Amino acid sequence: MKVSRRALLTGAAGVVAFGKAATAQAPQAPPDPSRVRGKPSKALGQRAASEKPLRQPRGVTSSGTPHQDLYGTITPADLHFERHHGGVPEIDPASYSLLIHGMVERPTVFTLADLKRFPAVSRVHFLECSGNFGGRGAATDITPQQLAGLTSTSEWTGVALATLFREVGVRPQATWFLAEGQDAARLTRSIPVAKAHDDALIAYGQNGEAIRPEQGYPARLFLPGWEGNASVKWLRRIELSDRPFMTREETSKYTDPMADGTARIFSFLMDARSLVTYPAYPVTLTRGWVEINGIAWTGSGKIRRVDVSTDGGTTWAQAKLQEPVLSKAHTRFRHLWNWTGGEAVIMSRAVDETGYVQPTRETLIASRGVSSVGYHTNPITGWLVRPDGTVVYRTEAWG
Amino acid sequence: MKVSRRALLTGAAGVVAFGKAATAQAPQAPPDPSRVRGKPSKALGQRAASEKPLRQPRGVTSSGTPHQDLYGTITPADLHFERHHGGVPEIDPASYSLLIHGMVERPTVFTLADLKRFPAVSRVHFLECSGNFGGRGAATDITPQQLAGLTSTSEWTGVALATLFREVGVRPQATWFLAEGQDAARLTRSIPVAKAHDDALIAYGQNGEAIRPEQGYPARLFLPGWEGNASVKWLRRIELSDRPFMTREETSKYTDPMADGTARIFSFLMDARSLVTYPAYPVTLTRGWVEINGIAWTGSGKIRRVDVSTDGGTTWAQAKLQEPVLSKAHTRFRHLWNWTGGEAVIMSRAVDETGYVQPTRETLIASRGVSSVGYHTNPITGWLVRPDGTVVYRTEAWG
Repeated sequence: MKVSRRALLTGAAGVVAFGKAATAQAPQAPPDPSRVRGKPSKALGQRAASEKPLRQPRGVTSSGTPHQDLYGTITPADLHFERHHGGVPEIDPASYSLLIHGMVERPTVFTLADLKRFPAVSRVHFLECSGNFGGRGAATDITPQQLAGLTSTSEWTGVALATLFREVGVRPQATWFLAEGQDAARLTRSIPVAKAHDDALIAYGQNGEAIRPEQGYPARLFLPGWEGNASVKWLRRIELSDRPFMTREETSKYTDPMADGTARIFSFLMDARSLVTYPAYPVTLTRGWVEINGIAWTGSGKIRRVDVSTDGGTTWAQAKLQEPVLSKAHTRFRHLWNWTGGEAVIMSRAVDETGYVQPTRETLIASRGVSSVGYHTNPITGWLVRPDGTVVYRTEAWG
Repeated sequence: MKVSRRALLTGAAGVVAFGKAATAQAPQAPPDPSRVRGKPSKALGQRAASEKPLRQPRGVTSSGTPHQDLYGTITPADLHFERHHGGVPEIDPASYSLLIHGMVERPTVFTLADLKRFPAVSRVHFLECSGNFGGRGAATDITPQQLAGLTSTSEWTGVALATLFREVGVRPQATWFLAEGQDAARLTRSIPVAKAHDDALIAYGQNGEAIRPEQGYPARLFLPGWEGNASVKWLRRIELSDRPFMTREETSKYTDPMADGTARIFSFLMDARSLVTYPAYPVTLTRGWVEINGIAWTGSGKIRRVDVSTDGGTTWAQAKLQEPVLSKAHTRFRHLWNWTGGEAVIMSRAVDETGYVQPTRETLIASRGVSSVGYHTNPITGWLVRPDGTVVYRTEAWG
């Protein structure tokens, strides 16, 4: 398979290759790096000067992951999206404590050292803000980061919340718990106890190292597959109860107003979604083979299939999934496509192991009403490839 | 299961918890972070001020991963070990090129953009220097980083070398290839073509982002499970041949002198090994339940089992492996142990899917001779827990 045409070399192969390199170097790189002693080993590595992936702050309370710059499935910790309601607090790990009380036999304060002493688990999971949809305006010059930067994937390490609940003796009548953060917003959410018995963690590790400050240092609640804000960061208190606490962030915010005037509340689950990260704005394509690729994820478990369309959804082909496909984690999909130069609309559609199919915009509006569009908005989206190779976001009316 | 005794709270639970926190904060952290507006979102995250994991440079040519500070299986990119023979070169990605020539139908120069246009694969793999054994001296005050810091695990993304070999038309008689780096050492190694057909990559991505300079930016050879220096970094040239090139780094170096006066050459495979990362020097244990944990890996595929001993190898118990166990990747193992206060020697022993059992020092010396000990030295090692709880490396004579 010829992916692109390249110059064939004859006799003086090496000269052609390195001569070519010598004419185009950046100011800081030597013409022939092999003639210059390189830099010594260092206590901490840094990115190459030419690589500048950055989160994109939206005001002071959030920033998105630059998916257009990334490969694979892991999000580097310093590029994991941020979302906070009162800024990132500074917390001394030596004085950190987590109180678990309420409907428990033994109310207990755990220090960070206490938490680390329990059996640990590590799991690769995505985390997504329920407000992660930036495609509702008329702008066509938006990147994957602007469209859906509020989702990231890390290897999280911590103690199973179920382990702590056994330790404190949660009473049988306790069905909900309050999780409270130590930030200036004192973010509080009510969570069903059943989630603790399923897969909730108190996480203190992220991608091999201590969790980062903006991700909840030194410890956070982590609820795999659920909307991000329920995974309370800088966690200082858990209170067990027999009913939800009806906090501000689950009544006035983070609810989904429905067409009939009611509101969906406690809509924790993040449904299946996918995002083409290449090609996307601001790439300019050249003709020939292009590996369309992106990420797909679902709060319901594993991604079963991702379909890709290059004709705006008229026909679909099944993409290759990068193995191993992990539960509740970004899954990289790839699909080889020969772009011959015409206009094209590239779309992806995720299907998860429950059979859930990522909806179209029309299906979303028909099932929930246009007023609910905001949180939990996971439509199939498209990138328009113009005949000149420029790629832009394909906008659609949202009612 | 009671992991440790903790104060039980009565009525004024919250007061006790946060009163305790308020007396011990670090100077930079506010007494009650929830009363202070936190920091705004930023384009790049940074570690918490209290967390300072560092590689440990050994001279200017290498630095080790601080395994004692890490969780899970992924090594943060800025903590991935370094090893270079001429320093870390600065290479302009716009002028980077890779020449593939020799016994091929179509000698070709690939730019970085060319490499990225081919179908990509992402795989989580360890990389280990064949000289990764720091436990031969008499020192007992060595950390996991000093004992075995020259192994790290990343998610690597790139193009399969087999894809490029099809593109250039490797001739049937070509059985070896030379890989040459663009660093001041012009590191060159001979690699069997069969490895390309197995799982070799030309990698340009690491843990989601562009590969780091000291890991071979902008592109490197990556040979899963093989000794690190064969995965030539800053790769500029591949030459196909019908025999090995017998370069300096595979004749005067990176060979294993055997007891009978011969030398093992092209000993690429990294055999199974394990490392207890906690507890280890310089930890001081307190009595009670301790989760012994560490990493195990093998160049032969998956880790099948890790055994842990707390009595210097007299008895062994099977540790829990963190799922999913990936091929040729660090696997976290964990084993819960109740330390009652006596002297103990903690050891781990990896068994891989081929049935290979990590050897004792005696077995290694008996099979290869003491003169070969240097490269490919993967013995079972021990951490001595003294009755006062201090933990030190348990040294052994190496002949």
